Amino acid sequence: MIDRLAIIGVGLIGSSLSLALRQAGAVGHVVGYGRNQKNLEKGVELGVLDSFEASIKNCVQDADVVVVAVPLGAMQAVFAELKPSIKSTAVITDVGSSKGSVVSAARAEFGDALPRFVPGHPIAGTEKSGVEAGFASLYQKRRIILTPLAQTDQAATAIIDEMWTHCGAIIEYLDVEHHDKVLAATSHLPHMLAFALVHYLSGLNDHDEIFRYAAGGFRDFTRIASGDPVMWRDVCLANGNALVGLIGQYQQELDRVVSAINDGNADELLKLFGKAKSERDSLIGNC
Amino acid sequence: MIDRLAIIGVGLIGSSLSLALRQAGAVGHVVGYGRNQKNLEKGVELGVLDSFEASIKNCVQDADVVVVAVPLGAMQAVFAELKPSIKSTAVITDVGSSKGSVVSAARAEFGDALPRFVPGHPIAGTEKSGVEAGFASLYQKRRIILTPLAQTDQAATAIIDEMWTHCGAIIEYLDVEHHDKVLAATSHLPHMLAFALVHYLSGLNDHDEIFRYAAGGFRDFTRIASGDPVMWRDVCLANGNALVGLIGQYQQELDRVVSAINDGNADELLKLFGKAKSERDSLIGNC
Repeated sequence: MIDRLAIIGVGLIGSSLSLALRQAGAVGHVVGYGRNQKNLEKGVELGVLDSFEASIKNCVQDADVVVVAVPLGAMQAVFAELKPSIKSTAVITDVGSSKGSVVSAARAEFGDALPRFVPGHPIAGTEKSGVEAGFASLYQKRRIILTPLAQTDQAATAIIDEMWTHCGAIIEYLDVEHHDKVLAATSHLPHMLAFALVHYLSGLNDHDEIFRYAAGGFRDFTRIASGDPVMWRDVCLANGNALVGLIGQYQQELDRVVSAINDGNADELLKLFGKAKSERDSLIGNC
Repeated sequence: MIDRLAIIGVGLIGSSLSLALRQAGAVGHVVGYGRNQKNLEKGVELGVLDSFEASIKNCVQDADVVVVAVPLGAMQAVFAELKPSIKSTAVITDVGSSKGSVVSAARAEFGDALPRFVPGHPIAGTEKSGVEAGFASLYQKRRIILTPLAQTDQAATAIIDEMWTHCGAIIEYLDVEHHDKVLAATSHLPHMLAFALVHYLSGLNDHDEIFRYAAGGFRDFTRIASGDPVMWRDVCLANGNALVGLIGQYQQELDRVVSAINDGNADELLKLFGKAKSERDSLIGNC
């Protein structure tokens, strides 16, 4: 049970967390902070928040757990601002989708509070954003990756582990570098490919017609291109090295497809598509 | 009302057509042909087919409408085999996702029956295949593109138009080249990107772990990589030139993303992702 939870950045992730904890009866008072007052008012109206504050200082000062759910590029400034105001027992976590940059920011700002910071990343979301996009079941059976540091208090980690467990999530532990490598492949790279596809097609002369004939496959494929541009800009800046390497290797894969088409190499194409299909069917399930 | 419908290739597309026409009361007897007898038996069991035949000749001989729903690479051989056996009034159509190669095959094989061939392409499907994947509502509110030739009988076109209208589809007319250009962009290119991504990731050392942390976005993005490898091999061979051109231009778009990341160009990344998001939201709907 978390008596007082502070959420900095009340969007899809933060509001779903609050709703899930409320549903589990695992939270007392939820206080929010964000730059958009209307969004915060909406949060109170929707029952996501009990109250909100106009400053980070006021938001965090009595909190037992502080969840920082802002874009990666805003993390360090938020950490700097909340540090002087938190209780000496407060536990802090974040939800950033790249952990290396967040941990660097935490090391730079938290000082003696660093052991009470538990880096986290819920592998869940939709392409929607804002407080109205939140829903209590978002984390049900989804993985939450925690990447505690050598100096992180085990008691702090246990509190964050329990918080997400109350939301119905599966908790996993990875080290920071490993997390960033895996997520670059499974999340950041596909997002880049989808953004690039829609951007490319939208620049063609007949793009209205192209989108007109788009079928369900195209809708599914490009859904992640409706993600929040600020969040994804920050992911690129935070995890750029890993991402650039993966895009380069992916382009070599595309080169192989092009060669097979140019050579009319039916066997090679069939092998490639067959392998991809069987991997996708077996590893993801035909869902 | 089609008294006798012959379906050559009883997969997702053909069986969904039969089920939709039955539901509309717009078809009498449905006879199927395919290479897999178990699939045909299943078709009778599921009510997709009234009967099946062991040869194309027997399947088409009394049919009023013949629907050829085989992979693009098998079209010409099927056309050659059915031509001597069809009634002099029979109307033929196909469902191939690239029209140029199908029309060439029709010109080569149909002779005096060419005016009764109406090239078609339903912009509908799922990643599943086989007769069991079919369902009556597949074509509801989906676009069917017909690409009749200069010499196509208007009466033949009207029969195929009406057939698809009974399925709840929206019928559109494009010329062959235009169809192939638009579909290369909106369907063939995304399929190549998804196949290439899954194939690339499945070759990595830690691919089990990568797929383990895949979230909903990855599932959606890669769903089309579960498509039928034979069908997509044939699309590559039939529409390869258009596809190779598009992949090349898409790679230039990826190069721009890489440059922006390497330069730490936050404004450029935000602009690119913002444009993609707004295009996707407005043109596709946030579905």
